[in-house]
Amino acid sequence: MYISVDGFGGDNAPNEICEGVALALKEKSGFNVYLVGDENKLAPIVANLDCDKSRIEIVHAPQVITMDDHPATAMREKPDSSMAVAFDLVKEGKATAVLTAGNSGALLSGGIFKIKRIKGVVRPALAPFMPCFGIPGKSRTLILDAGANADCKPEYLLQFAFMASEYLRVVFGIKNPSIGLINIGTEETKGNELCKRVYEMLKDSDLNFVGNVEARDIASCKADILVTDGFTGNVVIKFMEGMAQTLLSEMKAAFMSSTVSKIGAALAKNQIMQLKNKVDYEELGAGILLGVSGGVFKCHGSSGRRSIKNGLLQAVKFSQDDVIGVIKENMKEIG
Amino acid sequence: MYISVDGFGGDNAPNEICEGVALALKEKSGFNVYLVGDENKLAPIVANLDCDKSRIEIVHAPQVITMDDHPATAMREKPDSSMAVAFDLVKEGKATAVLTAGNSGALLSGGIFKIKRIKGVVRPALAPFMPCFGIPGKSRTLILDAGANADCKPEYLLQFAFMASEYLRVVFGIKNPSIGLINIGTEETKGNELCKRVYEMLKDSDLNFVGNVEARDIASCKADILVTDGFTGNVVIKFMEGMAQTLLSEMKAAFMSSTVSKIGAALAKNQIMQLKNKVDYEELGAGILLGVSGGVFKCHGSSGRRSIKNGLLQAVKFSQDDVIGVIKENMKEIG
Repeated sequence: MYISVDGFGGDNAPNEICEGVALALKEKSGFNVYLVGDENKLAPIVANLDCDKSRIEIVHAPQVITMDDHPATAMREKPDSSMAVAFDLVKEGKATAVLTAGNSGALLSGGIFKIKRIKGVVRPALAPFMPCFGIPGKSRTLILDAGANADCKPEYLLQFAFMASEYLRVVFGIKNPSIGLINIGTEETKGNELCKRVYEMLKDSDLNFVGNVEARDIASCKADILVTDGFTGNVVIKFMEGMAQTLLSEMKAAFMSSTVSKIGAALAKNQIMQLKNKVDYEELGAGILLGVSGGVFKCHGSSGRRSIKNGLLQAVKFSQDDVIGVIKENMKEIG
Repeated sequence: MYISVDGFGGDNAPNEICEGVALALKEKSGFNVYLVGDENKLAPIVANLDCDKSRIEIVHAPQVITMDDHPATAMREKPDSSMAVAFDLVKEGKATAVLTAGNSGALLSGGIFKIKRIKGVVRPALAPFMPCFGIPGKSRTLILDAGANADCKPEYLLQFAFMASEYLRVVFGIKNPSIGLINIGTEETKGNELCKRVYEMLKDSDLNFVGNVEARDIASCKADILVTDGFTGNVVIKFMEGMAQTLLSEMKAAFMSSTVSKIGAALAKNQIMQLKNKVDYEELGAGILLGVSGGVFKCHGSSGRRSIKNGLLQAVKFSQDDVIGVIKENMKEIG
C-alpha cells in the first residue's frame, strides 16, 4: 500500500514534510510512501532521513503550486507540480491516498476532478478538525463542509453527516458519533430554510443527531461532528484561525508591554505554550475531503513534521480500513 | 427628548441599569429618561442615584421578559413587561429611542412589530459592534445583519450597507465609512450566489466598498462595516463570544496550574485585564436595530453601568442627529 505525499506543499516544505514521513515510517509498518517533488531537492534530504528508506519512492515533479496560484486552475496549469502528480498517483490507482499541506483550493479541484466522486455522493465535503474545550477526553470536533460547496442543498448536508459518521466510526473508533447542526438557535424551528429542512432530515435519520448547536458552542465539544454548509463552515474555521492568531499576538504584545509583565510571562511560559498548543492545528490531525474515491488529506499550511506524521498515519488507517468501501455501501443504502 | 430604558433587561438589572442611566445623565444634558419597570423596585434605587433625578421618569411595568421567554412571542405574552412598555413609549412617540440589555429575540419582534420599518426599508438588520485589532486608532467594526434575517436576498444586504454607512457617518462622524463583504475568498468571483450578487451591487453603488473580507480578517479592522446575511452574522458574533470566553477561561486555568505560573499571572495581571477589556462588550457600545422608525439599542446581556451609559449616550446622539430622517431620505434615493 502506497500513500502519495506532496513534498512541496505548505510553508515548511520540503524539509518538514520529509521528516514527517520519516517519523510515520518509523512508527508504523505496512505501508510505503511516494514522495512527490523535485528529485534533485528531495534525494539529498531523503538520504539523510532516519528511517527505512526503501519504503520511500521519490516521484519526480519539477513544478510547485504555491499559495499565489489560482486554486481553480492551478492543477491544470501546473500538471507537473508535486501536488498534481501526487493526486495523479491516486487517480491511477498507484496510491490509496494523498497527503498535502498545500493550496486548499487546488486540493479541492484535484480531489473532485482528478479522483472524482464516489458513486451516489452528490457533493464531496472538506472536513477538518477544530479544537474544542471543556469536556474531559474530548479535544476536537470534525466540521464539514468547511468550504468545498459555497451553496448547499439539504440533501448534501445529510450525506455529509453520513460520511463523517462512518469516517469517525471506522478510522477513529468512535462508536456512534454525535452530530450537531450549526445553527443560530437551539430550537428545532430556528435558522435559515436550509437548516430547518436539514434538521428534519437528520431527526428522521438513524444517525446520532443531537440537535442544533449554536455558534457560541462550536468550541464546546457538544458533538463529534458539526454539520454546516460550505460557506458557514469556511467562515467558522477561518474566523477561528484569525481570532486565535489575533488573541495570541495581542497577548504577546500585552505581556511585552512592561518589565514586570515580561517577568510574569516568562514564569508562565510553559502554561502559555500549552494553551497555544491546544489551539494549534499541529496536534489536531489532517482534514479530509470526504466523498471522493480515494483518500485526500490536507495538513495545515504551516504544518511541521508532527502534523505531517499524524496526517500520514491517518491516511494509512483510512486506507487499511477501506473507508471508501464503507461509504459506498452507505450511499447505496441511503441513496 | 426622552429615551426609554428597559430597567429589567440583562443579567445586572435593575441596579446597573439605573447606575448607567445616572452616569449618562451626569455626562450629558438635553435629554430625559423613561425608566421602565416595577416602580416598587425602581423607586428606591432611583432615590439613591447621584444625578439630577428630575430627568428620570419611572414608568411602571410589573412584568419581566427573561432569557427563557420565547423570543417571538414574549412581547405579546407579556404586554406589561418592562421591555414591551419601553418599546410602546417609542411606538407612541413619547420616546425617540429605546435601550435594553434584555432578550435579543424579543427586541427584534418589538422593533419590527411595534416600532415598524422605515418606509422603503425591506428588512431591518441587527448591527452590533465587534472588537478589531491591529490598526492604530481602530478598535471596532460594525457588523450587520447579526441575526434579524436568517435568509437574505441581495437587495437586503445592499440596504444594510447604506443604512450602516449613514449611521456611522452621522452618529460617529466617520466620513466615508468603508464597507467589506464577509466572504470565503477575496476575489470578486468568490463565495455563494448571494455574495457574488451583492459584490456586484456594492461595486456599482457609490458606497465606499472595499471588497470581500475573508473570515480570518473579520477581527483585523479591514472595514468600518462588515455586511453579511443574518445567519452568517449571527454565527460570527456568537462564535466570537464563545471563543473569547473559552480562551480566557483556558488561559485562567493554565495560569492557575502551577505556583510559578500563578506568580507570573499575578505580575502580568494588568496586561491580562487590558486584553480582556479589548474583547469585552462593555466598551464597544450598543448594537442597533437599523431600519425601524425609532432608535432601538441593545446592550450586551452582561452589561454593567458603563455599557448602559455608553449605549444611552449613543441613543441620544442617534435621536439628536435624526438618523431615521437621514435613512428615510436615503431610501427614497436608492429605492
